[in-house]
Amino acid sequence: MLAQKPIAITMGEPSGIGGEITLKSWLRRSAFSVPFVAIDNPDRLRNIAHDLGFSVPIETVSDLKYAAVLFPDALPVCSIDLPSKPQPGVLNQLNANAAIASIDKAANLAKANSVSAIVTNPIHKHNLYCAGFTYPGHTEYLAHLSGANIEPVMMLACDGLRTVPITTHLSLREAISELSIERIVSQSRITARALEQDFGLSAPRLAIAGLNPHAGEDGAIGDEETKFITPAINILRKDGLQITGPLPPDAMFSATTRPTFDAAICMYHDQALIPIKTLDFSGGVNVTLGLPFVRTSPDHGTALDIAGKGVADETSMVAAVRMAAEIARFRGVEAQ
Amino acid sequence: MLAQKPIAITMGEPSGIGGEITLKSWLRRSAFSVPFVAIDNPDRLRNIAHDLGFSVPIETVSDLKYAAVLFPDALPVCSIDLPSKPQPGVLNQLNANAAIASIDKAANLAKANSVSAIVTNPIHKHNLYCAGFTYPGHTEYLAHLSGANIEPVMMLACDGLRTVPITTHLSLREAISELSIERIVSQSRITARALEQDFGLSAPRLAIAGLNPHAGEDGAIGDEETKFITPAINILRKDGLQITGPLPPDAMFSATTRPTFDAAICMYHDQALIPIKTLDFSGGVNVTLGLPFVRTSPDHGTALDIAGKGVADETSMVAAVRMAAEIARFRGVEAQ
Repeated sequence: MLAQKPIAITMGEPSGIGGEITLKSWLRRSAFSVPFVAIDNPDRLRNIAHDLGFSVPIETVSDLKYAAVLFPDALPVCSIDLPSKPQPGVLNQLNANAAIASIDKAANLAKANSVSAIVTNPIHKHNLYCAGFTYPGHTEYLAHLSGANIEPVMMLACDGLRTVPITTHLSLREAISELSIERIVSQSRITARALEQDFGLSAPRLAIAGLNPHAGEDGAIGDEETKFITPAINILRKDGLQITGPLPPDAMFSATTRPTFDAAICMYHDQALIPIKTLDFSGGVNVTLGLPFVRTSPDHGTALDIAGKGVADETSMVAAVRMAAEIARFRGVEAQ
Repeated sequence: MLAQKPIAITMGEPSGIGGEITLKSWLRRSAFSVPFVAIDNPDRLRNIAHDLGFSVPIETVSDLKYAAVLFPDALPVCSIDLPSKPQPGVLNQLNANAAIASIDKAANLAKANSVSAIVTNPIHKHNLYCAGFTYPGHTEYLAHLSGANIEPVMMLACDGLRTVPITTHLSLREAISELSIERIVSQSRITARALEQDFGLSAPRLAIAGLNPHAGEDGAIGDEETKFITPAINILRKDGLQITGPLPPDAMFSATTRPTFDAAICMYHDQALIPIKTLDFSGGVNVTLGLPFVRTSPDHGTALDIAGKGVADETSMVAAVRMAAEIARFRGVEAQ
């Protein structure tokens, strides 16, 4: 039997809840079919485990092929230097580069085929910006590191629903202005390809949302459906894709409509995020589509306000690791 | 014991599913603490009952005080003339004025205190516009009929969640342009008052949504929160109201956050409608706040495509009648 390649979990913001949810995930290690390795600072993790009373042996590994054999008995850690001891809940710019170094290391390991997937802990963007980081977020930075010349696509997934926002952290006004036939077509194609490659769906069904109430009622309430969305749908249908839409945004996420598609292409951030978080606030997973390596992340932030208190919920991290393992299996990159 | 005043259910679009769901609601009459009367055409209802095999005796009443005694044994109907026999699923402009006459009659009965509430079946706006109707919809027409000089507010309610969209059937772009401190303050005040008067909440808690992703991150993603929403919240707090916000729109409808407020004030149609319909597609109810009489309606349209087939779901109508009865009880208008 081939040994299983581990999944890399990055450190994220060192003063956030990332360490706690990584440790809690290891405590639930029987829930995973695949081992994981933390790209993190071993002392930081030991301190968190000690402070919270978690029984998690930390074992530093330099060669990742030992991660799988260690995993049942200890949390394997690929070591990242931390200039300053992090205080839970207190940002420290001295440690900003360490958060970036963990992402760099994970991307290098994925490109070298030493890990089967990357799961990223939340970073604190403002703290990284102050330290000179210039990317809008994880997704764009990983796309840069991957060397692939594509715009990555963010997918949110919970049990029974996958959504893809056409734009992410733009104001709603800008999100409307950024709508275009090209953007809808391009992201829908990447999504359809990922549903095949990463989720094993041989004939993926996409639902394309309208932008306006009731999907515009044939132009009576806004013209983005007739100008952008319907023309994009016509192009995608010519590709041979199975498309429904433009669908009324309020009705398309109902219990009876959700099972009729494999992913919903949404016209703005909250159209995609509201249904996911309304249905499953703690179990949602963020998946980056279109990268040469597998990347997921929990669907929450650094939660500085509860860091160090032992109350962080690892549900989304566990779901993110499980989904990363599943995608790696579909891609056939899980074995060494 | 005082006799119970009935609730009036209007006819709605004569070729839609309204008659079917009225009849189905009467078949579930033991679910109601209050009788209802259909403001409808008796022959139309008899024909639908016959065609669908429903055992519903239809009894025309001219004096509504007999509705309560008849209700256990027959569906009381306050008769509206229909110029042409309606065909399920086929619009007929000859009958448009009858749909309006049913609304007029219901409003007059409510103003005369002969019914305790109005529940409206869905109308087909386009068919009414062609017949000369000039109001954007039911809500505005009822406000006109009521004679009250206020802008009525639409609330959506399902089990565990109430939402109020600041604007309704505007394009998303126009909805953003229509945002103002005054509008948010005015609709929040009407909502707070209605939660006290109509829902018996002595200290209502309002959650005010942001417009942009993450509620704008202090102006980093859009400025509507800082320009309109936060100033409106400050005014409402000076009123003594319990307000949280601006809340990140994606997270505020989660299972853990929903119980922290009595109603969410939403910045556009789908922000209010997506969470309601995602949680409960068939049981959502539309309540008009701020009218001198009680008015609710099922949260769906005329459904011409399934009219006459016997498959229409009466869940939302049943919920609308029950909610109308509850509001009438809180207002103290339920007894004759």
